[in-house]
Amino acid sequence: MREVAVVGIGMGKWGELWKKSLRDIFVEAALAAIDDAGVERIDSMYIGSMSSGLFVGQEHIASLLADYLGAVPIPSARVESACASGGLALRQGFIDVASGMNDIVLVGGVEKMTDVGAGEATFALGTAADQEYECYQGVTFPGLYALIAKAHMHQYGTTREQMALVAVKNHRNGSKNSAAQYPFEITVDDVLKSTLVADPLRLLDCSPITDGAAVAILCPVDLARELKKDPVIKIIGSGQATDFIALHSKDDITWLTATAKAAERAYKMAEKKPEDIDFVEVHDCFTIAEICVTEALGFFEKGQGGKAVERGLTSLEGKIPVNTSGGLKSKGHPVGATGVAQAVEVVKQLREEADERQVKKARIGMTQNMGGTGGSALVHIFEKV
Amino acid sequence: MREVAVVGIGMGKWGELWKKSLRDIFVEAALAAIDDAGVERIDSMYIGSMSSGLFVGQEHIASLLADYLGAVPIPSARVESACASGGLALRQGFIDVASGMNDIVLVGGVEKMTDVGAGEATFALGTAADQEYECYQGVTFPGLYALIAKAHMHQYGTTREQMALVAVKNHRNGSKNSAAQYPFEITVDDVLKSTLVADPLRLLDCSPITDGAAVAILCPVDLARELKKDPVIKIIGSGQATDFIALHSKDDITWLTATAKAAERAYKMAEKKPEDIDFVEVHDCFTIAEICVTEALGFFEKGQGGKAVERGLTSLEGKIPVNTSGGLKSKGHPVGATGVAQAVEVVKQLREEADERQVKKARIGMTQNMGGTGGSALVHIFEKV
Repeated sequence: MREVAVVGIGMGKWGELWKKSLRDIFVEAALAAIDDAGVERIDSMYIGSMSSGLFVGQEHIASLLADYLGAVPIPSARVESACASGGLALRQGFIDVASGMNDIVLVGGVEKMTDVGAGEATFALGTAADQEYECYQGVTFPGLYALIAKAHMHQYGTTREQMALVAVKNHRNGSKNSAAQYPFEITVDDVLKSTLVADPLRLLDCSPITDGAAVAILCPVDLARELKKDPVIKIIGSGQATDFIALHSKDDITWLTATAKAAERAYKMAEKKPEDIDFVEVHDCFTIAEICVTEALGFFEKGQGGKAVERGLTSLEGKIPVNTSGGLKSKGHPVGATGVAQAVEVVKQLREEADERQVKKARIGMTQNMGGTGGSALVHIFEKV
Repeated sequence: MREVAVVGIGMGKWGELWKKSLRDIFVEAALAAIDDAGVERIDSMYIGSMSSGLFVGQEHIASLLADYLGAVPIPSARVESACASGGLALRQGFIDVASGMNDIVLVGGVEKMTDVGAGEATFALGTAADQEYECYQGVTFPGLYALIAKAHMHQYGTTREQMALVAVKNHRNGSKNSAAQYPFEITVDDVLKSTLVADPLRLLDCSPITDGAAVAILCPVDLARELKKDPVIKIIGSGQATDFIALHSKDDITWLTATAKAAERAYKMAEKKPEDIDFVEVHDCFTIAEICVTEALGFFEKGQGGKAVERGLTSLEGKIPVNTSGGLKSKGHPVGATGVAQAVEVVKQLREEADERQVKKARIGMTQNMGGTGGSALVHIFEKV
């Protein structure tokens, strides 16, 4: 397989984009990425979108977006793995380039979530869980993560304040990211006084409903060198895994098996260990999720994720900065776009273009993106050479 | 890239499967394919489904179906390109094996369409077109293909009877296929007297609403030989392309540019020409579609597809047998499954297991699967060695 580089990134401002349609949002980010890469063509494209059918009544966006980008007749595919759809697009693009099938491949993610009401959005997001055995019985997505939070608190003594600190940290990072939906700081007190959503999770523990897109351009490393990219940013590891979709099937709902397995595969391909990673973007759809993910990725012992946040180990200056972009919490979470936006942040950091949230001497970055309550996960490792 | 073989196929009876859920239908076909392949594991899976969100309120079926198949924690991806989702799954599986990323790859397609009412199904199918600029203005899918039919009749003198003959031929083939939803013969008179749907298309010009799944197992050719597969069936060409999604953007709505382009790419990879192909499964979502597709694949001159049917050139004994399985018309069209079912039929023919519909001395088969009114297309070529 050929070595693969990321040579372009594009991402507009995220938020409630009332005046833009799904096609506008995607094309804007795609053109920015193509410009950034300095390429004159693309050979194929992969688009992650969780539920364009339920959110905007449009499937077949592989054709629609190739059309609106002016990219017809290139091969174009939409991929879906719930909230991990963007990470899946990245992996499929990686395989496409690595295989030799195509040279310059666009990978994007997009979701337009604000065209429906709250009830419809809750239903659409529930399609990431086992609808028949979970949501149709009355539980919503915050409810599922609330169960995980309760179990983590019970098993490991994780505190309400530790979860709040995840949100506080991510908003602090996000306040330095102009693309973020909510680029402002919050306090522990703000979190603890915010509306209760599903006990123990409150409004400021939850990632928001967001419109947005993110795009990256991949190509063989040799071509990246010809394009005079400096630094060249390589994807050195890609791991993907699945787990039982419903919480009731799992032995331990606080342990993210698919994330652990995907990480194991990515570490193996990259020949790296957790201690080699300089910073990581993880899937903090709820504050408790970030805590569980940092354990499954091997940065902290099982059950110690909450204490690690409290000790500042995951802050910008900590041992392993987590979610320098602001994460899903502050940057926003247009579900299909999130996995690609994580790669955009990693590239910005490795290029030293992350402004006030720059991680010093960053050489190796990681992304972790997951679907539902962890039924699918994608982990990628990037290295600056 | 490594050479890729198809070593297993599975497909149950298609139809209105009231007593089975999406997960049941898929798992049944997948287990049959795994049995048929004689493999003891699968390394990854790709599932084509057009709109599980709108049809059964469930996305994230990559996780759900890996789970219900007992295949967790393997990598699993859902891919979508409207009615070409199955063909896309086949291509992604092909790339996955060819790249060396995975060895034994399951590619499946599934759709459970009968759990919604007619209005909801019409809406869901409309998501394959440009909803905002086509369907929201009042046109449905049969309406779009009716426009194509009218244009073909006007430009080339294609007759109402020629279109009816496509349905008659496909039902004749389908009557010999026990998996078909409508395994019975019909006459030209039946078609012409059936309910008018969208002038000039009548009920018996339209493929039906179907529940069903189809699965194939891919692996490197070397491994197929180790498994003592005889014959070894190789995928020698894979082509994918896009076109404008909306009919109003096309220069000539009777010409399927994406199909022609995907075929050009598949022929080139396979180093074959139209005259090398022994039989083909094509996307006859409406009778006029089959006529247009056979032209775009290069079997007949532009505008001559209707006359070719009339002359019997596409019948089981003709120059190029088309849709020996019964096609979408008689076999059924569970949208996401269709592209994989086409490959199932090709494998059956090449193995000489096609019973009374067996094509004599078949060595090279082709599949053509498309999304919407041709906004995306996948073409694959298979050879028995």
